[in-house]
Amino acid sequence: MSQSASGLQKALAAAFAKAEALGVAVNIAVVDGGGNLAAFLRMPGAFLASTDIAIDKAWTANSFGMSTAAFSQMLEGEVAPVREGLLRRPRVTVIPGGLPVRQDGQLIGGIGVSGASAAQDEEIAMCGLKALLES
Amino acid sequence: MSQSASGLQKALAAAFAKAEALGVAVNIAVVDGGGNLAAFLRMPGAFLASTDIAIDKAWTANSFGMSTAAFSQMLEGEVAPVREGLLRRPRVTVIPGGLPVRQDGQLIGGIGVSGASAAQDEEIAMCGLKALLES
Amino acid sequence: MSQSASGLQKALAAAFAKAEALGVAVNIAVVDGGGNLAAFLRMPGAFLASTDIAIDKAWTANSFGMSTAAFSQMLEGEVAPVREGLLRRPRVTVIPGGLPVRQDGQLIGGIGVSGASAAQDEEIAMCGLKALLES
Amino acid sequence: MSQSASGLQKALAAAFAKAEALGVAVNIAVVDGGGNLAAFLRMPGAFLASTDIAIDKAWTANSFGMSTAAFSQMLEGEVAPVREGLLRRPRVTVIPGGLPVRQDGQLIGGIGVSGASAAQDEEIAMCGLKALLES
Repeated sequence: MSQSASGLQKALAAAFAKAEALGVAVNIAVVDGGGNLAAFLRMPGAFLASTDIAIDKAWTANSFGMSTAAFSQMLEGEVAPVREGLLRRPRVTVIPGGLPVRQDGQLIGGIGVSGASAAQDEEIAMCGLKALLES
Repeated sequence: MSQSASGLQKALAAAFAKAEALGVAVNIAVVDGGGNLAAFLRMPGAFLASTDIAIDKAWTANSFGMSTAAFSQMLEGEVAPVREGLLRRPRVTVIPGGLPVRQDGQLIGGIGVSGASAAQDEEIAMCGLKALLES
Repeated sequence: MSQSASGLQKALAAAFAKAEALGVAVNIAVVDGGGNLAAFLRMPGAFLASTDIAIDKAWTANSFGMSTAAFSQMLEGEVAPVREGLLRRPRVTVIPGGLPVRQDGQLIGGIGVSGASAAQDEEIAMCGLKALLES
Repeated sequence: MSQSASGLQKALAAAFAKAEALGVAVNIAVVDGGGNLAAFLRMPGAFLASTDIAIDKAWTANSFGMSTAAFSQMLEGEVAPVREGLLRRPRVTVIPGGLPVRQDGQLIGGIGVSGASAAQDEEIAMCGLKALLES
């Protein structure tokens, strides 16, 4: 994985700062291209159930190479067995807030945020992603 | 299981060639009549989440002796407790792309493909099945 | 949990700096008093298997309120059914490198490090713990 | 992962040919650098229990960046809590027959063989590894 340990910390810090600015408490997760946990931070007061949701958002975004929001939209166009079949898979989630991480066009991981509104989660994840790619 | 090791390799190769011809990246899995993994191949770039889905398609097709597409249709005609009860079982999937393997009318396994569209997955699985039966 | 998000980041940063100074690549995990993941960082090149081991060290240290090294020693003095019974529990580990987190005498979490030698893991965890308590 | 789909098939074929020459039936597994299954083949008659053992050998070799035989020897030199603690981890195995896959010095996966004697398993895995690296 090309994500350096300092890059990962900058991603957590940037997402954390954004969440604080928005006045929300969230969980922030990054997985590598193999779907393995690379970095995680839970802000005090963040929903406990969102811990795994944030990790699964990152995992899903990396697994399908698209945001969980785009994945959700794509499923809308699928026939029921495919849509339902995919939604029932462990770890697969369509909750917005998961983004793929790409470097030089190569999929190298995913970042997921959970705990605020869908729009806020995605906005915070975008901040984390930007910091990760600039690091 | 009657599936020979060389037959399994030919099945993987035929499915792989078909996927390449279609320009898609997929996971290909074969299970024996006991539901145990017999052969597997993941093409680089195939959705990571599709690894287990391909195996579960093969497992489901062998478990019920019909394609996952036919199984999905069959469930439509069932009462809710049966349909929901079956769909909630681990490993059971209704996503098309899983086919039963029959030799002389005998169910001897399943093949599953995952990573492309439902129609492509099934088309690729069909190629693998054909190679397996001819071997 | 009293651990602030910035304190958690300082703990990851301090443990990471120590690991770099020692020339080793490790996984660093912090859990809160409920045993839930609070922060995590995997350094590139760290053993993949150590991801869960680091989390389980933190979980075990918090669960029993003592370091995993002390827990291991305590088990030595136990009768076999207790020792074996505890060792067979999921998530329970006796590998050194897990430390409890206490604030004003109150158990509020655990920190675990995995990927280097047992002595190095514990030394790195100690650095992370110190940064967490000073923050 | 740099392992191409054709390279993976050549690895399975080379290991299979070696096992046939030795007159044994084995399971052959390859995982990528993220520990995810990349290729698998079970020869008819191979021990059913060896299916997962082969996969876990590949997983362990990739997780620790060394052969399962070397990992086993390394554990001999460890204190009991570390040795016992690691041996109790899910998926971790010290049974010989698992080898790391390195490309240009970079760890990119693992290959595992199970079903024959420890020496034969490792010899077969070596053949698969050689074919993978030459492809």
